[in-house]
Amino acid sequence: MSKLQLNIVIVGAGNVAWHLAKELQKKEQNIIQVYNRSVESAISLSRRLKCDFTTRIEDLYRDADLYILTVKDSVIEEVSASLNLKNKLVVHTSGAIEQDVIKYDRRGVLYPLQTFSKEKKLNFKNIPFCIEASRSEDYNILMRLANLLGPMVYNINSHQRKVLHVAAVFACNFSNYMYMISDEILSKESIPLDILHPLIKETASKIAKHQPKAVQTGPAVRKDKSTIDAHLNYLNEGDNYDIYKILTKNIIAKNNDEL
Amino acid sequence: MSKLQLNIVIVGAGNVAWHLAKELQKKEQNIIQVYNRSVESAISLSRRLKCDFTTRIEDLYRDADLYILTVKDSVIEEVSASLNLKNKLVVHTSGAIEQDVIKYDRRGVLYPLQTFSKEKKLNFKNIPFCIEASRSEDYNILMRLANLLGPMVYNINSHQRKVLHVAAVFACNFSNYMYMISDEILSKESIPLDILHPLIKETASKIAKHQPKAVQTGPAVRKDKSTIDAHLNYLNEGDNYDIYKILTKNIIAKNNDEL
Repeated sequence: MSKLQLNIVIVGAGNVAWHLAKELQKKEQNIIQVYNRSVESAISLSRRLKCDFTTRIEDLYRDADLYILTVKDSVIEEVSASLNLKNKLVVHTSGAIEQDVIKYDRRGVLYPLQTFSKEKKLNFKNIPFCIEASRSEDYNILMRLANLLGPMVYNINSHQRKVLHVAAVFACNFSNYMYMISDEILSKESIPLDILHPLIKETASKIAKHQPKAVQTGPAVRKDKSTIDAHLNYLNEGDNYDIYKILTKNIIAKNNDEL
Repeated sequence: MSKLQLNIVIVGAGNVAWHLAKELQKKEQNIIQVYNRSVESAISLSRRLKCDFTTRIEDLYRDADLYILTVKDSVIEEVSASLNLKNKLVVHTSGAIEQDVIKYDRRGVLYPLQTFSKEKKLNFKNIPFCIEASRSEDYNILMRLANLLGPMVYNINSHQRKVLHVAAVFACNFSNYMYMISDEILSKESIPLDILHPLIKETASKIAKHQPKAVQTGPAVRKDKSTIDAHLNYLNEGDNYDIYKILTKNIIAKNNDEL
């Protein structure tokens, strides 16, 4: 098979564009242009990539092989329609949005299942890619492209991707929020969150080998009422109290299922 | 300073005893006896340690240097009183219980801030130890012992330890519960949780360098109402719906604080 080398336009200049476009360049793909409505982000990304940029839809290069939309979920449909392309493959990178909001015949999805922050470097080998396309030729292009980026490439349709995204919100966004509450609680006592890092890492790595249910620990799963009451008493009403209560109730209920 | 070598009785034979006692042996401490009320666990731990065991309080060795209570929080007070010791250092290993429930003059706490499951091996280098003692000589003994086990030893009093334990419930037990919900959601679509491991690991490792608040991602922090509604719609009432709702509400509220 000949080497894959695509001319790519990146639409949007947020966190995903920042990391993904750079990695595509490393894998010898040609990023020929960045399009973004606001000029600051467009310039900053085009400098990073040493490629052209535009903020005007009229100036979009219309001869690329692939258009990767990295814009906010809420504007994917509108932005993709405004590109006004003919017979070009247009994909978005969102976990939440159906492939079919893209109204071109050649459409698809290249969803990197990872959390992106501009300041944090990512190893692309650790990013699963979920791909989908309306045509099998385009699916193959995306598969080859994703395989350049990393070893974990999954064929995931729009429905599965939506479910995956809900699950990812729990596993990533909400677990990070649990860390944030911990941090809040500890900072009142001037204890640094560092002391919990080993525990947090161990908890996350345990589930590589065990079902989460099998390794659930803590006062709730032990139904240790006096500790639970002492914790609730310490939290003393408020939002974290409510969260502690509902999660504890559910852990107890789920672990009674099978008794 | 002379080498620390203590004669130790382990009281209780659960997960903490299983790992901690073995590690103490590796560090050349003498585990002279295991005491546990139920005979099966007592035998199984004493086999692992190749040491004596008893299930009868009358047969407890009363000449050890240190008694480590690894029993359930709810029975620490009662079990420690029943030991009937004189001028011996008695410590518990709990995050939730005050030092002073131990009614001996020489009392303390050796709290390993980690999640223990029998089946999962632990590297003790990754376990912070929180220590406390009623007397400074005993504090020094515990500090030397903890330093044998790992490099992270913290001086944490009973109040701080309680707060730390509340924070650990969020950071560990509740984040594991988030993984469990993810697993539940994915299994309905026959998608293995493996696909989320990289995301879970990245989320946990991010906070080694960043405040959790600074790296919060997802629809809630973006106030992406249409994704949130789609997710709630998919969850379709039930417990996970309620949890999604309360966590999303709180993430939005906390991130509006500073606007």
